Amino acid sequence: MDFNAYITRVNTKLEKYLPVQGYLTKAMRYSTLTNGKRFRPILTYSVANIFSTHLDLVDSSSCAIEFIHAYSLIHDDLPAMDDDDIRHNQPTCHKLFGEAQAILVGDGLQTLAFKVLVNDNLIGSDTKIELIKSLTHASFEMAEGQAIDLSIIAKQVNITTLETMHRKKTGALLNCAVNLGAIVSKNCNNKDQTILNIFSKDIGLAYQIQDDVLDIETPDELLGKKQYSDEYKNKPTYPSLLGLDKSRLVYKDLYEKAIDEIALLSVDAVELQQLTIKLQERLF
Amino acid sequence: MDFNAYITRVNTKLEKYLPVQGYLTKAMRYSTLTNGKRFRPILTYSVANIFSTHLDLVDSSSCAIEFIHAYSLIHDDLPAMDDDDIRHNQPTCHKLFGEAQAILVGDGLQTLAFKVLVNDNLIGSDTKIELIKSLTHASFEMAEGQAIDLSIIAKQVNITTLETMHRKKTGALLNCAVNLGAIVSKNCNNKDQTILNIFSKDIGLAYQIQDDVLDIETPDELLGKKQYSDEYKNKPTYPSLLGLDKSRLVYKDLYEKAIDEIALLSVDAVELQQLTIKLQERLF
Repeated sequence: MDFNAYITRVNTKLEKYLPVQGYLTKAMRYSTLTNGKRFRPILTYSVANIFSTHLDLVDSSSCAIEFIHAYSLIHDDLPAMDDDDIRHNQPTCHKLFGEAQAILVGDGLQTLAFKVLVNDNLIGSDTKIELIKSLTHASFEMAEGQAIDLSIIAKQVNITTLETMHRKKTGALLNCAVNLGAIVSKNCNNKDQTILNIFSKDIGLAYQIQDDVLDIETPDELLGKKQYSDEYKNKPTYPSLLGLDKSRLVYKDLYEKAIDEIALLSVDAVELQQLTIKLQERLF
Repeated sequence: MDFNAYITRVNTKLEKYLPVQGYLTKAMRYSTLTNGKRFRPILTYSVANIFSTHLDLVDSSSCAIEFIHAYSLIHDDLPAMDDDDIRHNQPTCHKLFGEAQAILVGDGLQTLAFKVLVNDNLIGSDTKIELIKSLTHASFEMAEGQAIDLSIIAKQVNITTLETMHRKKTGALLNCAVNLGAIVSKNCNNKDQTILNIFSKDIGLAYQIQDDVLDIETPDELLGKKQYSDEYKNKPTYPSLLGLDKSRLVYKDLYEKAIDEIALLSVDAVELQQLTIKLQERLF
């Protein structure tokens, strides 16, 4: 499967939803139309695709997820939060547009996520309601996760607290990316939904543990942001608690478990398995 | 009409939606369960009431509007924005909980607004979609309005720019508060909706011009925040452009026009007219 086709697709759609007009658009476009990995939209498209759902029906979901993700990065990067200067190899939003604008751009992008979903004329009302329910749940969890993240800086925490934080901060939105694809897919049955739910929770946690590891392993240029930033910020991470080798094992096990799980779906899951392998092999 | 009954009602409902649990709740409750005027929920309840709509059906709308309003105040008060220390006669959210937490609390409240609407089991899907459409539109306009507000500090602007800013920053959400009440009211016909739309746009602009005037006229204790804050921040206002007397005339005319407009509704509009008079007479 050529996942780049999904990246091209979502980039085109994101641009459509962010026309060059209005007072916040310039900064919104700057921070959203980047060379981001688009992993969340790819997940949504892949889930829809394995259930033979027309991709037109998940364009709004893919974009909504990415808008929420983009807003969270802009706010996380603010001086009051993680104080990061570089993101996707370019100055962060507040470095270029100032803090006030960056706060508003994040606020606007969150609204836009729900706006795009609720105005999608290709989807019926009941389905839209389910999509928005899922997205509000995930978006709220994400904010809570970030609150935990900031509250445990320089603190001794156990692995359970760290896992809760990761599941909320990163996992909830990945879970939602999969759920949105499943909700729109008419032939995704209840059992499939349960399987996908477990699958996405596993890859969500794996993804964040892997991020912790990559923060140590990957140089700035490839990472697109500062290496060793967790250590520098005195953030507890899986490697700081379990060591690098054990952390690698944990996330690899989770990815492998996830690959096994989706073999149980009622449809051919090869595409989603390939995506999971690609994730597992990512270097940044 | 006893508008205090609406205030009591919305306060109870807001508290219900903000249980004492979770990682952001304490600061969310602190900033939301205040002695705020609750003017937007009152508007929503009043519109529903004049159309004999059961108030249970607009509880979620009233709370959603107030959550969006609360989030906007928290973010507007941040050091990077208006840098205000006092709101509703108490320290602003970031003064008590820190900037990072205040940003996240605002983010969480925005999500909560949509979450509350989309999970309201008393309302049908199609109606919910209309409510969420209206709220996403208003919320986006509001962020744009704040962006304009910050961009014109210490600048010479004309009255048209100022009006655009006011209509977006304050007017859009007031307009939405009325719209939500109208959307839920089954016997609010198209002509009524048009009338209410004009009415709410007029009181929305009037309200903000009046705010500009009250910022000069009302002492801190009564205002619940700093007097002369616009002048101190070098913000262009109606009084700075038109003078105090002319500004008073402009907003009074708008309120009176609004009162005349709703006399044309298909139902008895006395309650809404009384509310408009009350607004016009407010001292803070």
